[in-house]
Amino acid sequence: MKICSPEKTTLGFIGTGVMGAPMANHLLKAGYQLYVHNRTASRAQALVDAGATYCETPGEVAAKCDVTFAIVGFPPDVESVFLGDFGIIASSKPGSIIVDMTTSKPDLAVQIAAAAAAKNVIALDAPVSGGDIGARSGALSIMVGGAKDAFDTILPLFDLMGGNVVYQGLAGSGQHTKMANQIAIASTMMAMCESLTYAKHAGLDPETVLESISKGAAGSWTLTNLAPRVLNDDYAPGFYVKHFIKDMQIAIDCSAAMGIPTPGLITAKALFDKIANEGFEDKGTQVVIKAYGSW
Amino acid sequence: MKICSPEKTTLGFIGTGVMGAPMANHLLKAGYQLYVHNRTASRAQALVDAGATYCETPGEVAAKCDVTFAIVGFPPDVESVFLGDFGIIASSKPGSIIVDMTTSKPDLAVQIAAAAAAKNVIALDAPVSGGDIGARSGALSIMVGGAKDAFDTILPLFDLMGGNVVYQGLAGSGQHTKMANQIAIASTMMAMCESLTYAKHAGLDPETVLESISKGAAGSWTLTNLAPRVLNDDYAPGFYVKHFIKDMQIAIDCSAAMGIPTPGLITAKALFDKIANEGFEDKGTQVVIKAYGSW
Repeated sequence: MKICSPEKTTLGFIGTGVMGAPMANHLLKAGYQLYVHNRTASRAQALVDAGATYCETPGEVAAKCDVTFAIVGFPPDVESVFLGDFGIIASSKPGSIIVDMTTSKPDLAVQIAAAAAAKNVIALDAPVSGGDIGARSGALSIMVGGAKDAFDTILPLFDLMGGNVVYQGLAGSGQHTKMANQIAIASTMMAMCESLTYAKHAGLDPETVLESISKGAAGSWTLTNLAPRVLNDDYAPGFYVKHFIKDMQIAIDCSAAMGIPTPGLITAKALFDKIANEGFEDKGTQVVIKAYGSW
Repeated sequence: MKICSPEKTTLGFIGTGVMGAPMANHLLKAGYQLYVHNRTASRAQALVDAGATYCETPGEVAAKCDVTFAIVGFPPDVESVFLGDFGIIASSKPGSIIVDMTTSKPDLAVQIAAAAAAKNVIALDAPVSGGDIGARSGALSIMVGGAKDAFDTILPLFDLMGGNVVYQGLAGSGQHTKMANQIAIASTMMAMCESLTYAKHAGLDPETVLESISKGAAGSWTLTNLAPRVLNDDYAPGFYVKHFIKDMQIAIDCSAAMGIPTPGLITAKALFDKIANEGFEDKGTQVVIKAYGSW
């Protein structure tokens, strides 16, 4: 399979939650035949109503498809979906391409790629950034690791889901890039919280302070997009605390394994752990402002 | 003085270094009569050649001017220039406006405003962000504290030097806003360093990683503008390590006085102290990447 088209290519999508459902929908709308599976079947119903076919297991999806995508929750879910008895690799067709879009462990991505290769299947790791809003608008950043020719083959599919699709290198490189992304976010979250907390306690109007600082050298996506939510006491999840903690733990483990210091990341992680312990793990990451005690 | 114009208003500028010289030049070019002073007189020569008049002391400048600006180095310099025997306040005309644009201590700004008020002079604190590039292009962010009517009176002058001029509140509020700005920068610098260090050690191409991460939720001015300098081994000062350390120390002291935690700021400050101790204090802040040991 060297050309990807709705006429020749059958697609699968496993994990049709808040991210997966809109991503899969972009593929469906482009005219592709789509097989889907989700742990909670009811959450795939809207896609089935729109023309997708439901399968009982990840393996059943993969058996029918040329390219199978998955975006699930945590690394154990990835392991089960890809390497389990009823998983993708056990049933994939030789020559097919399988893609994990979950944010997960880089070494698990390498392990999946090796297991796939043993069955003449090509695995890519392609985690995303941009949240449910990016998923719905097809504007995700997609960071891809694995065989370059497989990436080239399915780039038109990535382009249906993402606005910034970048090949990063061999298996695991997509996950490593996502870790670099989450590491950058971790300390930038502290930057926002400490700046807002300082402004408030100094007797300033934080909104007016943002007018001065958010467009200059102190500016960040976080300050522009999340600080206003904090000022509105809006802690609804764009990105869940519990998922960010998972990501930071993977990044900390990988950094430790490489022997590199990450004092900012470790400091930020402790603040998020504190917030999670106080019952905020299902809130948006901006709720970390509450770790500073006075918001 | 309620209207500011080249015909009616005489201006002073003290501190004509890498920031002050281009800022003063915008005033001169707008047609204002300008008196200048600098500790090292030779660094005011270009302004004198362009039409400014040199004075031997800050007080001599202030005695001649309706509005006197200063941008010098450290809080002791501010104290000497404003409160010293040959300083601005000792010689200012009643009804004149004096403006400290140095990044300095908020409580020193309050002290200067009180000393000025006792002589019927109005003091504003108006630190800037944007570096020498912003100073040259007239695009500085200017954060202003002090009497609102004095701010309104000289807003046309601020607008000659800045692109984002915002009134933040009573005396000291400009300095507090600048501290909120520097606090935001501090942790965002760690975000950049740790992300790049991770990417490099994970075997990725940091430049390609930036393509994936700099435009999304991990994005920041720092990542967009300073990370490429790091990748080019360019540590020339846009903003000096030694000045940033001064600012962070003021922010830490103020935060401690308010009783608010700043774990990110404190962690970042330690990294910059390390770099300064290793001889990098006259480099640009992006050199803090070297605190991570492997760049």
